[in-house]
Amino acid sequence: MDGPDNKGLIYHVTGVLFRHGLNIIRNDEYVSPSRQFFMRTEFEGNFDNEALLNELQTTLPPGITLRINPKKKKNIVVFVTKEHHCLAELLIRYAFNELDADILAVISNYNVLQPLVSKFGIPFHYISHEHKTREEHEEAMLRTLAIYEPEYLVLAKYMRVLTAEFVKHYPNRIVNIHHSFLPAFIGANPYRQAYERGVKIIGATAHFVNNDLDEGPIIAQNVKEVDHRHTAADMATEGKDVEKLVLSQALKLVFNDRVFIHGNRSIVL
Amino acid sequence: MDGPDNKGLIYHVTGVLFRHGLNIIRNDEYVSPSRQFFMRTEFEGNFDNEALLNELQTTLPPGITLRINPKKKKNIVVFVTKEHHCLAELLIRYAFNELDADILAVISNYNVLQPLVSKFGIPFHYISHEHKTREEHEEAMLRTLAIYEPEYLVLAKYMRVLTAEFVKHYPNRIVNIHHSFLPAFIGANPYRQAYERGVKIIGATAHFVNNDLDEGPIIAQNVKEVDHRHTAADMATEGKDVEKLVLSQALKLVFNDRVFIHGNRSIVL
Amino acid sequence: MDGPDNKGLIYHVTGVLFRHGLNIIRNDEYVSPSRQFFMRTEFEGNFDNEALLNELQTTLPPGITLRINPKKKKNIVVFVTKEHHCLAELLIRYAFNELDADILAVISNYNVLQPLVSKFGIPFHYISHEHKTREEHEEAMLRTLAIYEPEYLVLAKYMRVLTAEFVKHYPNRIVNIHHSFLPAFIGANPYRQAYERGVKIIGATAHFVNNDLDEGPIIAQNVKEVDHRHTAADMATEGKDVEKLVLSQALKLVFNDRVFIHGNRSIVL
Amino acid sequence: MDGPDNKGLIYHVTGVLFRHGLNIIRNDEYVSPSRQFFMRTEFEGNFDNEALLNELQTTLPPGITLRINPKKKKNIVVFVTKEHHCLAELLIRYAFNELDADILAVISNYNVLQPLVSKFGIPFHYISHEHKTREEHEEAMLRTLAIYEPEYLVLAKYMRVLTAEFVKHYPNRIVNIHHSFLPAFIGANPYRQAYERGVKIIGATAHFVNNDLDEGPIIAQNVKEVDHRHTAADMATEGKDVEKLVLSQALKLVFNDRVFIHGNRSIVL
Repeated sequence: MDGPDNKGLIYHVTGVLFRHGLNIIRNDEYVSPSRQFFMRTEFEGNFDNEALLNELQTTLPPGITLRINPKKKKNIVVFVTKEHHCLAELLIRYAFNELDADILAVISNYNVLQPLVSKFGIPFHYISHEHKTREEHEEAMLRTLAIYEPEYLVLAKYMRVLTAEFVKHYPNRIVNIHHSFLPAFIGANPYRQAYERGVKIIGATAHFVNNDLDEGPIIAQNVKEVDHRHTAADMATEGKDVEKLVLSQALKLVFNDRVFIHGNRSIVL
Repeated sequence: MDGPDNKGLIYHVTGVLFRHGLNIIRNDEYVSPSRQFFMRTEFEGNFDNEALLNELQTTLPPGITLRINPKKKKNIVVFVTKEHHCLAELLIRYAFNELDADILAVISNYNVLQPLVSKFGIPFHYISHEHKTREEHEEAMLRTLAIYEPEYLVLAKYMRVLTAEFVKHYPNRIVNIHHSFLPAFIGANPYRQAYERGVKIIGATAHFVNNDLDEGPIIAQNVKEVDHRHTAADMATEGKDVEKLVLSQALKLVFNDRVFIHGNRSIVL
Repeated sequence: MDGPDNKGLIYHVTGVLFRHGLNIIRNDEYVSPSRQFFMRTEFEGNFDNEALLNELQTTLPPGITLRINPKKKKNIVVFVTKEHHCLAELLIRYAFNELDADILAVISNYNVLQPLVSKFGIPFHYISHEHKTREEHEEAMLRTLAIYEPEYLVLAKYMRVLTAEFVKHYPNRIVNIHHSFLPAFIGANPYRQAYERGVKIIGATAHFVNNDLDEGPIIAQNVKEVDHRHTAADMATEGKDVEKLVLSQALKLVFNDRVFIHGNRSIVL
Repeated sequence: MDGPDNKGLIYHVTGVLFRHGLNIIRNDEYVSPSRQFFMRTEFEGNFDNEALLNELQTTLPPGITLRINPKKKKNIVVFVTKEHHCLAELLIRYAFNELDADILAVISNYNVLQPLVSKFGIPFHYISHEHKTREEHEEAMLRTLAIYEPEYLVLAKYMRVLTAEFVKHYPNRIVNIHHSFLPAFIGANPYRQAYERGVKIIGATAHFVNNDLDEGPIIAQNVKEVDHRHTAADMATEGKDVEKLVLSQALKLVFNDRVFIHGNRSIVL
């Protein structure tokens, strides 16, 4: 739940759960400096979803948004271009039941990763952007997505910018991995930029995609030390390990319904 | 508060606070695998401490331990031997009101740090251990402590082992910084041990002191990379920066009443 | 090269290379506190391997050990038990030509990872330890290894102790990943031990295997923060990401001939 | 030494040192992708500085820059504004002979840090910028610097931009600590910017000062994790520990003559 802060919010919610005999396993809340209240409550027991939701809503002041999410795997489609490392990380986790999601399909604008995907028995859709306008390409992808109706799209090193038109089909449901410590090195070739600037640390950022390039709410970041010996290519190689782990870490949070969005910031409870 | 887990604990506590018109700023709880419940609630407003405590206690099932701590600086005494870096860190933070504690005095078994302490106008007690039995030495320190009645003792590189007899005067109120990543390298000369073992990372550990050497609940740890070029002395030099920051970080948690003790483990809420 | 330190060692070696018209790309040297000299020189150009080695040896004082290693992939066999994460990391890197090694075969005392290995077209040998003495089991493995004649064995979460008899077939050529920050938590169930001790950081260690359990020269280590919420099982899950990256990082160093062994310590040049 | 790469550079230099009976303790070299050669050689023994320099220069091809720096403490002046943490770190290290430099004086545009500096017996010059043009203010500071003739200026949270005119008096001899992970958050209020962007990691950067704000060669960087609970003020508090250690780490490298400048990048040997 989230909404304007008010006295008694925790009390009212926990009261409803208590009267229903439900057991709270974990409860985390946060009040922003702007007095916005966020709470995530993990509970177990038997209940009627709609009835509980109604009772909670009548107990709470207006303006509070409430969701009850059953603990279940999310359905996702993964977008890639040519680089394998993030995709492979997701495929291995999926194959060994460690992803908290089912990968319904992989979509790519190149076919180089088809052999990898086929090892894992997952549909691979090669939708080239060549000889297509950006709109035609995205429409082709949307037609393919319509088959799968995924809850989330994961951009696992998908190297093309998505239009605002496309993004609005999946509001706050597209997760991207960017190969820099945002907001440093927005845009193309961040490792080249990092090398030119002579940084001593490189990083990666997983974030929700909104209309502005590399500008959505950040979910997770991590970094790795480099030194003058690292060429831009070396940084890219070293960076792959950071990218794939940051993406996995962010997806774990998102797929377990632990991420709230507050303006351009993420609240992780 | 902490005690055996039970349905409704959060509800009961937040209900009492709600009825008193008190506003919860932050609420964190944790249930251990052994079903022990811990909760730390930060709230603001006007109330009678004893009345509120009584009402909370009657609302809750037996076996729950409750404390209401006003937000205030702790009174501490710092123990040192010859090394300055942790002490200096505490003195500087204290001088600039960043310590969440008042340093009432410094006690040392050597007098080498007296000039540093005197710069900050804090009493320095040189209590040599020479020509004294361990018991005589500790009795002398206890007599000095009786002047100040500190709430916490901070061992900021105090290089002597305290007896169980001494420790029981300050149960869970002595914080030590050990210059290794415990439980690796318990005991003397941990950097020498680390060098001999050829580790690639060194660390420091802040922990509560109990009867067994280097065995109390860990509050905070941090690490730093080293390589084959680091001699034991180099590791000791590099390690100082880790030690002083880990100690400061741990004290910030302890002095803000954020640390619960559960067996030999710490719960930080 | 390595051996007792002496004036002029760098001068003599670089002189020979200079007279042969060879170009030094990278040169790193280290002198230990015990006055042992280590140098790794990367150079390019055309030369006769044996002639160059002879000339270098006659130029240098006795007691210096010299090797000229061509830049080429190493041949390896991977040992596993039931856990997939380190093996999968190696397989993916191998499949995309990022391993600096060819995986000739995988040997396991269980058959659970056969489906994963078969996706990558690599021979999988299931050699159960059941109904065999330790010696019989190791002899069976040695017979299989004789087919492949690997230069290195990689224990990618192989959960059985190897005998000194077995190890001496591959002196300083067996790399193991141990799931703790050694020397903390030697032996079985390190995450359980870490949980019981209440540590705030977990780690993993890649090391050469010698006769003593978890005691060989450390090649690489890394760590990850945990808190009181992590059960031993959670630590094991989080630790997998550290383990697989530390192993990969160590293998990159070993397979590029960057690791010297000096007593129980590794020198990485 | 540094200059265009050429075969035999290491050989020629080590040959001269060998013939002089000098013992190389440590030798590090680096060749950039643009074929620029850098080498730092630590050696011990008795020699005539000018004669050795001449002989080295005649042995080497033209275009190579050579310096022989005796191992000695640097003379520095520290600039501050109001924040104490970086200055205090330097003062404590200086007081305990851990700085590799002598602090000749502290200059500030406010007088708030005078009491701290006076504890350590170091001259404090309060040179207010009020009622002065930028040029007048800098001229006043240059007049004070003329008394001390420092080799390096350290900007330990000096919150005013220096003009190109001022900087050219100390080319590559001014070290600044910037409170962000550059190039993210250039300019004022980086923690405020970091908070607004919702980053999950904050950082600090020590760099040489050149004409462009926050744009000189980076010497060292480090980072610290934050989360949604950190306000901009909390980030500033947490960031102080990173800032002071990054500055100390960078100064240790600079004062030990380990940093070469190559365009806008630093080479640390």
